[in-house]
Amino acid sequence: MATSGRADEDGPALRIRIDFCDRPSLGPGKVRLLEAIDQAGSIAAAARTMEMSYRRAWLLVEELNTMFAQPLVSTQLGGSRGGGAVVTPAGRMVIDRYRKVEAEAARATSALLETLTRDALS
Amino acid sequence: MATSGRADEDGPALRIRIDFCDRPSLGPGKVRLLEAIDQAGSIAAAARTMEMSYRRAWLLVEELNTMFAQPLVSTQLGGSRGGGAVVTPAGRMVIDRYRKVEAEAARATSALLETLTRDALS
Repeated sequence: MATSGRADEDGPALRIRIDFCDRPSLGPGKVRLLEAIDQAGSIAAAARTMEMSYRRAWLLVEELNTMFAQPLVSTQLGGSRGGGAVVTPAGRMVIDRYRKVEAEAARATSALLETLTRDALS
Repeated sequence: MATSGRADEDGPALRIRIDFCDRPSLGPGKVRLLEAIDQAGSIAAAARTMEMSYRRAWLLVEELNTMFAQPLVSTQLGGSRGGGAVVTPAGRMVIDRYRKVEAEAARATSALLETLTRDALS
């Protein structure tokens, strides 16, 4: 069983999206972007490591910053593409909770996924 | 907490996609289509109830029928759009397992999702 949220030769994996009632959903792409910004220190650098356009990364950050009660990414001035960006404590909390939801869901369903693989795939 | 896989006023819900290593993934859209075919008895009628084009439904059924060891939908002759379709025992098993994975993941993560809602959304 893959527990990392990525399927591998050991078996299938879950991809988790959290649907909120009246706002955008939170899935693996936004969470990976937050983690990349946290590592890279800027939206532009994070977009490059994810092979995503700067514009798309920026739009996702804007969505992330308005869908929760507090902004998840804080940007510093520095020209249209030059400034740095940091993940706020609220952002780290959202990353952490999402990864915990993912791990807990993978743990709880691993036996079911194994039987699905055994019975339906082979 | 919504446990049906659909967010409502009670809180967020998980949307689950199962990623297999070397084949298409299985998510809520394909499973709902299988359930609609099971109810409606034809791909065309199922597509209509899902407000999906017949072509898209047909392509999804073709994908479902080749990604598992056995076909999930069996189609009867009857012209290009006229024939009936039934969900096979393998198809019912896949629906059942997916819904169980979904329910188990929702159950296992409900407390985490509640704290995410409380801490990040309000």
